[in-house]
Amino acid sequence: MFADILYEKIEKTGNPTVMGLDPRIEYVPDSIRENTNSDASAVLNFNLKLIDTLNDIIPAVKFQSAYYELLGPIGAITLQQSMAYAKSVGLVVILDAKRNDIGSTAKAYAEAYLGDKHYAADALTVNGYLGTDGIKPFSDICEAKGKGIFILVKTSNPSSGELQDMKLYDGMTVYEKMAELVNGWGKEIVGKHGYSSIGAVVGATYPEELGKLRKIMPKAMLLVPGYGAQGGGANDVKDGFDSKGNGAIVNSSRGLMCAWKSEKFSGKYTHEDFCEAARDEAILMKTALNTATNKS
Amino acid sequence: MFADILYEKIEKTGNPTVMGLDPRIEYVPDSIRENTNSDASAVLNFNLKLIDTLNDIIPAVKFQSAYYELLGPIGAITLQQSMAYAKSVGLVVILDAKRNDIGSTAKAYAEAYLGDKHYAADALTVNGYLGTDGIKPFSDICEAKGKGIFILVKTSNPSSGELQDMKLYDGMTVYEKMAELVNGWGKEIVGKHGYSSIGAVVGATYPEELGKLRKIMPKAMLLVPGYGAQGGGANDVKDGFDSKGNGAIVNSSRGLMCAWKSEKFSGKYTHEDFCEAARDEAILMKTALNTATNKS
Repeated sequence: MFADILYEKIEKTGNPTVMGLDPRIEYVPDSIRENTNSDASAVLNFNLKLIDTLNDIIPAVKFQSAYYELLGPIGAITLQQSMAYAKSVGLVVILDAKRNDIGSTAKAYAEAYLGDKHYAADALTVNGYLGTDGIKPFSDICEAKGKGIFILVKTSNPSSGELQDMKLYDGMTVYEKMAELVNGWGKEIVGKHGYSSIGAVVGATYPEELGKLRKIMPKAMLLVPGYGAQGGGANDVKDGFDSKGNGAIVNSSRGLMCAWKSEKFSGKYTHEDFCEAARDEAILMKTALNTATNKS
Repeated sequence: MFADILYEKIEKTGNPTVMGLDPRIEYVPDSIRENTNSDASAVLNFNLKLIDTLNDIIPAVKFQSAYYELLGPIGAITLQQSMAYAKSVGLVVILDAKRNDIGSTAKAYAEAYLGDKHYAADALTVNGYLGTDGIKPFSDICEAKGKGIFILVKTSNPSSGELQDMKLYDGMTVYEKMAELVNGWGKEIVGKHGYSSIGAVVGATYPEELGKLRKIMPKAMLLVPGYGAQGGGANDVKDGFDSKGNGAIVNSSRGLMCAWKSEKFSGKYTHEDFCEAARDEAILMKTALNTATNKS
């Protein structure tokens, strides 16, 4: 089942980092764009090279669906090929598509992305605004096929509080209420390491909330975006982990894809070295996260 | 701009009905499935026939993205072809995809679906849980390109209240707060008929809430799902309209796609007559809605 597979893959690599492949075409280095004849094949090449470079030191990869949809129908093929490749080299594959609907429509999304026929992701991000009717069709497939979902609880963006931080009559915030729902939805799908295949998305940019949410959802695997480019650091995310340094996975997209441009490498890399730079950054991130969570 | 185009198209047809094309393959009659060699071409044929039959008496069509995504990458082409055809015969084209994300990712979704390059919908449904950062990239394109969005406020499903009905500290519910946000986001994009291109989704299954929300969002065009198969009738949706019977559009999906099976036609139609049955149902729906809103 998903929670166990992810947990064990993190243990094996010793690295709670997920590489976000959100390939805006501007992020693809000229060295690739010059040698490919379309945006779609440039993106595919870029993805495959990064996956080849990092698959032995990271547990998982997260594809941001929007950038593939932006390419039109061909982007769906690029996504499918990239996901299949990541899976073939043993990475856990998360699709960040934030889908949401009800009943048979939610079931169609669940089958499209978590079913075996087309994309076969290991996990999908989902928006829970619609309540149980919008989650059950996804959690049913998680249970039947060993897949996972991550439900948006507290997002990393500056204005996430407009709705999510509103206080309810009983003193809880909307995001805490969402966390309680997630905790309830996930309690029947818990694996042998104590984590549920129904996880949650909580932004790295809200460290205090992250610690609070870790407690409200003790069994939820947390997917934490917002590290690096959005401003979150290792100390900001540490409270998303349990006392043994488990139970969370931290996403870096631009931080890895565009590592060669990073000031921290002070000109060491050019666009031709984007893979080496990404590998260096993934190792730095692993060390920073393990240090912050007192692991190893 | 979108709000004016939709308003005028409703006036012209005298019918505030939007046909939902949510083509689960089981909905496609045998007469079509026997003569096509794939699910994708069966769906395309089904859509084109329904569009041909109804385009002179309805203003708009709404495509449910999930059923096209369920077909895999080829489904993206089916969606694109269906949308282009609906547009070519003069229908307003709404894509129901409930997308949501932040910043450049939300912009990628907005460009993918509201931009000219691939799908070129007139309007897109959006989930507002992420706040202004998640809406601005969409509303910017609405403003620049005369497009529209419909933001989920109160959804039609039984469990929508789990989060949406929660009472906030000030006595408002979460969905009312969302409605206030929608009202604020839309106030700069109001057309000559007084309606904004930033609309809202409110379910037909919650008549009381519909009336309340009409008042909180006086300028929002309301997209009302849940009519027919989900249980909402003309009297349930009437409070979603303004005092002149304008400002809302009511979706029917199964009610039109599967009209030939409806008990109300007591065996008059077979699967071969699905188009005639859909036309009959669209006219019944027009009459029922206009009667309920006192619009001759």
